[in-house]
Amino acid sequence: MFSLDKMFANIKPLDRSLEDKIQHKLDYLTKPRGSLGRLEELALQYALIKGSLTPQLKDKLVIIMAADHGIAAAGVSAFPQEVTKQMALNFLNGGAGINVLARHTGTNVKVADIGVAADFEESSSLVSCKVAYGTQNMLTKPAMSRQQALLAIEHGVLLVEKEKAGGLDILATGEMGIANTTASSAITAVLTGAPVDRVTGLGAGIDEEALANKIDIIKRVIAKHKPVKKDVLDVLTKVGGLEIAGLAGVILAAAASNIPVVIDGFISGAAALAAYCMKPEIKDYLIAAHCSVECGHRVILDYIGLSPLFDLNLRLGEGTGAVLGINLVEASVKILNEMASFEDAGVSQAD
Amino acid sequence: MFSLDKMFANIKPLDRSLEDKIQHKLDYLTKPRGSLGRLEELALQYALIKGSLTPQLKDKLVIIMAADHGIAAAGVSAFPQEVTKQMALNFLNGGAGINVLARHTGTNVKVADIGVAADFEESSSLVSCKVAYGTQNMLTKPAMSRQQALLAIEHGVLLVEKEKAGGLDILATGEMGIANTTASSAITAVLTGAPVDRVTGLGAGIDEEALANKIDIIKRVIAKHKPVKKDVLDVLTKVGGLEIAGLAGVILAAAASNIPVVIDGFISGAAALAAYCMKPEIKDYLIAAHCSVECGHRVILDYIGLSPLFDLNLRLGEGTGAVLGINLVEASVKILNEMASFEDAGVSQAD
Repeated sequence: MFSLDKMFANIKPLDRSLEDKIQHKLDYLTKPRGSLGRLEELALQYALIKGSLTPQLKDKLVIIMAADHGIAAAGVSAFPQEVTKQMALNFLNGGAGINVLARHTGTNVKVADIGVAADFEESSSLVSCKVAYGTQNMLTKPAMSRQQALLAIEHGVLLVEKEKAGGLDILATGEMGIANTTASSAITAVLTGAPVDRVTGLGAGIDEEALANKIDIIKRVIAKHKPVKKDVLDVLTKVGGLEIAGLAGVILAAAASNIPVVIDGFISGAAALAAYCMKPEIKDYLIAAHCSVECGHRVILDYIGLSPLFDLNLRLGEGTGAVLGINLVEASVKILNEMASFEDAGVSQAD
Repeated sequence: MFSLDKMFANIKPLDRSLEDKIQHKLDYLTKPRGSLGRLEELALQYALIKGSLTPQLKDKLVIIMAADHGIAAAGVSAFPQEVTKQMALNFLNGGAGINVLARHTGTNVKVADIGVAADFEESSSLVSCKVAYGTQNMLTKPAMSRQQALLAIEHGVLLVEKEKAGGLDILATGEMGIANTTASSAITAVLTGAPVDRVTGLGAGIDEEALANKIDIIKRVIAKHKPVKKDVLDVLTKVGGLEIAGLAGVILAAAASNIPVVIDGFISGAAALAAYCMKPEIKDYLIAAHCSVECGHRVILDYIGLSPLFDLNLRLGEGTGAVLGINLVEASVKILNEMASFEDAGVSQAD
């Protein structure tokens, strides 16, 4: 049977025994020391995770978890709930933003239905791991049962283990779920202690009046359910989302398997926050791709202590920023593996 | 005969007649409006420059101009002058940072000797357009003659015209030249009016004492030659570099040919600044890839009014940041060309 504790036991602090050797290799490539900045840091992190001076980066995957949210009924989103399923189909048909950027970066796409409020026809390319037809409306009930939250995490873990068997060097997280910024804001407020209005934004495009309503709803939801900050599973149960719990499982499993995981925007960030609060050792396996327009994302990054690679004013989700992040990690690994050293190239060094 | 004025006459303000149509296309792709942030802005800019709703982006090129600087004799760099030629050979052999990142992004590399203080064996892959064996030491003489500055610009223009003939959709600028941050700081101080110490940094890695010396030297050079701000050619002549003048030519020619040009770091930025001060209309054809660690680069970007795509603490030059920038432009163009619309995908729109 799946056990979180057993899962946690597999997550080890990053082994830094090769750090000096990797840094030495980076320092003697034909460039002023450190002049490739964040790319050198990424290369070091990746090589440490892989425990190799010549790490491979070939198999890239973005896992997109889709789920619906009962709170959508409260009018917190600019889009109707049916869009969750429609966009999942768009992912399967290759027409969404994530598909374009995944192709651009050579990243495989896996779409999982972990809680969409509609049925899908059977499809070889959709992973079916539906825990429920969406969460409950948090205004009246907890989003899900504790058992469902655990099951969603387990599905995330199992998905990574299955993908790993076929070869998997790096992972990106993505999601789709109408109203999932609301759940993410609630999780972020509870786990970081930040005020609700500082972690709540316009989502897919509501106006200022709807934002005030959204903030009020999140405050009421937290006041009603009183999620226990130290019990992350309780937080996910009461104010979470199935795709967020699922992605937390993906992130935990990646760390347990020495697979670097590139975090996308705010919702993926909330999943990373949940995973981090459960097991802080995962931090060394995380790479923050970008900083989302959603204000809560910055709060999450600061709380975990992650510095995003870029800020392109993205707020689409789906993993779009994360696959661009994978592309930079791949660039950094190629720097480590392919650049000539001063000695090899016969280039004089600094005085 | 080459004439700057004839060149300038070919540079037209960006034709915005397709703007509404391109924006409409972007707005009806399956994503919340504007949610791909800077990528959407890039796609719009690229499509406007190409005058197409379905612009092609296939042939990518980084032009690396290499040249030496007489001022290197004053001890302004951490590396000996011979490194300029050694690194140019490294570029030709495919072992440098730019080669790795250019391969990663599918960008062709063209290396031009516009002023290296050494001879090269003949090589089919090196463009020979040597104007001089490096510049003069600016502490005693103007860096070059006005005729040489003009010739360097012309070489840049001719190189773009030649490459264009074989197909060229987008360009990136790169450079190599020991001591070329010194010339770039001088150019930046004169053309933007910023104080020398605000535009002068550690270059490839000098210490604080050497930095104080470098700042003092730049101040003396400017005081001695009194370059005339409004006469950009005079500035390039007195305190410039051959690769900087050459890249200014590359940038002007790109704008004249509707080829977007992605600017790399501080030295490329100084070239862009020179081109901009000569012909401000080029701004719409420029894309600033990143913001360099060199403090003068930010001053240049602010002066022209460009917002960099990312900040990865790069300070290598060679075009390394610019080819990563090309990669983002390519991603943005694919978004425009490949994403499904709401109608195509059967996805409901926002309320």
